[in-house]
Amino acid sequence: MVGAILVKDGERIGEGYHTKFGAAHAEVEAIKNATASPEGATLYVTLEPCCHQGKTGPCTEAIIEAGISKVIVAVRDPSEKVSGKGIGALREAGIEVEVGLLEKDARELNRFFFTYHEKKRPFVTLKAAISLDGKIAEAPGEQTALTGMPAQRYLHGLRHEHQAILVGAGTVLTDNPHLGVRHVEGRDPLRVVLTGLRKLPKTLAIFRDENVLLLSDKNIPKVLHELYEKEITSVLVEGGQKIFESFLAAQLVDELQLFLAPTFLGKKAVPFAELKKPLHLKHVHTKTLGKDLLLQAIPEFSAE
Amino acid sequence: MVGAILVKDGERIGEGYHTKFGAAHAEVEAIKNATASPEGATLYVTLEPCCHQGKTGPCTEAIIEAGISKVIVAVRDPSEKVSGKGIGALREAGIEVEVGLLEKDARELNRFFFTYHEKKRPFVTLKAAISLDGKIAEAPGEQTALTGMPAQRYLHGLRHEHQAILVGAGTVLTDNPHLGVRHVEGRDPLRVVLTGLRKLPKTLAIFRDENVLLLSDKNIPKVLHELYEKEITSVLVEGGQKIFESFLAAQLVDELQLFLAPTFLGKKAVPFAELKKPLHLKHVHTKTLGKDLLLQAIPEFSAE
Repeated sequence: MVGAILVKDGERIGEGYHTKFGAAHAEVEAIKNATASPEGATLYVTLEPCCHQGKTGPCTEAIIEAGISKVIVAVRDPSEKVSGKGIGALREAGIEVEVGLLEKDARELNRFFFTYHEKKRPFVTLKAAISLDGKIAEAPGEQTALTGMPAQRYLHGLRHEHQAILVGAGTVLTDNPHLGVRHVEGRDPLRVVLTGLRKLPKTLAIFRDENVLLLSDKNIPKVLHELYEKEITSVLVEGGQKIFESFLAAQLVDELQLFLAPTFLGKKAVPFAELKKPLHLKHVHTKTLGKDLLLQAIPEFSAE
Repeated sequence: MVGAILVKDGERIGEGYHTKFGAAHAEVEAIKNATASPEGATLYVTLEPCCHQGKTGPCTEAIIEAGISKVIVAVRDPSEKVSGKGIGALREAGIEVEVGLLEKDARELNRFFFTYHEKKRPFVTLKAAISLDGKIAEAPGEQTALTGMPAQRYLHGLRHEHQAILVGAGTVLTDNPHLGVRHVEGRDPLRVVLTGLRKLPKTLAIFRDENVLLLSDKNIPKVLHELYEKEITSVLVEGGQKIFESFLAAQLVDELQLFLAPTFLGKKAVPFAELKKPLHLKHVHTKTLGKDLLLQAIPEFSAE
């Protein structure tokens, strides 16, 4: 997600954004849409301009050819193909380049992409529907419907935003979940199941098409490395308890999306995770979803 | 809390409300403030007009004397002194009376008062500060500060609204709480401690003045009956775990005020209550209080 604005003599003369994969980049769009000559203008862009031939030509060339005299970049591109090289190419052509304006926002905007390149693993979102006593089911091996339709719809939007969903074999065997995107428009993410040594019958709903990946490894860093190698930039971890515990114990959760249902499930119920020590959350945002509540937050162990 | 409006020929000609205990009632205020003669007017009032001499004269007489021809009452007064008698006196004087307009809202407005008279016990609000895994302290006998100042201020407002606060001896001995109203303007409610057989040293903060009531009984209906006899219309139950469990097990909680802190305290922590079966909440309202979240709800076992 990249946007660009062209400014000349204090006036905005053009703007553009990257509408989809394969389409023209934001910088090229801004130059194309300019209502005055871009010569001598300043270009503001949320990500370092690319300098390689991809689906479209290098943006650095388009910027140099347009005669732009200054480029203000929010943040460097973290990918090896570009990082610093785009800025270098512009400076070599005599263009003044500044880096770092609203960098935090720009990183947040593309957090999947930055995590993927900088940490060499997908961005991990942990999603759980929990009761007010932090439980996920009334009893082990039982499926408890906690949340209502507005929360379900929001969840399906989350699934659509992620490239992969990850669950454990226990969840698949207990709930036989669809794990697809149905309540909103969107494509199904890759369904990743950590099977351990368990066998899964091919009649399960997750096997309805080929968009499934079974991994027998239970070591979370290794699992994430495998997803990195498959170019998965984001994964939504949906449970169950053991999977939540493994990701939290490995401190490999970037964001929590907790759906809170207005219920106490009681002492016999299954906890979301049996945490050995307290886990504090920061950057908490909440949202009402019908009868339920969404709480978005970042676990304190993770660097922001 | 009572309000009244006088309407004549489709115009609002007067309004009033009961500003404080001992002051003129809403009906008398509305008549006094009328901008036209109340003769032949319709009076709308949120509670049945009184018919007895209290701190002020009976409202029924004022209404009859003013020549009002119709009275629309939201809800009957539940107290034995008035219930039905006010309406009867008006009808005997030839005034048309309707009862039930927006009754639910009128009852909600004075829920302490209705509960007190109809159930012969105080209205019970259970307040707890809990983590996202429903825990109240990191370990037994330990005090864990979960919530921030905005939640504290809100809590002190709640205390001010209630006539009494109730806690167990364990809480008093562990936390040595002040249980007063400090972060907002207001008077301290009566501090009720269920002591059981435990002795409390007189150096504790709760003994700073005489506004304390120690009860050795642990039977919740009996405790509430004692408070009823002392004309306590509302009590804020603040813990700890055993006290919460006793009130919930007795199904004697009218409203929950839960402060949710964005933290998981983990498996060794003390649960808010060890519930034997699920407890569902209804009429859930939420509010952000700094880093914390307030969740107000009604437990499903209680009649609305």
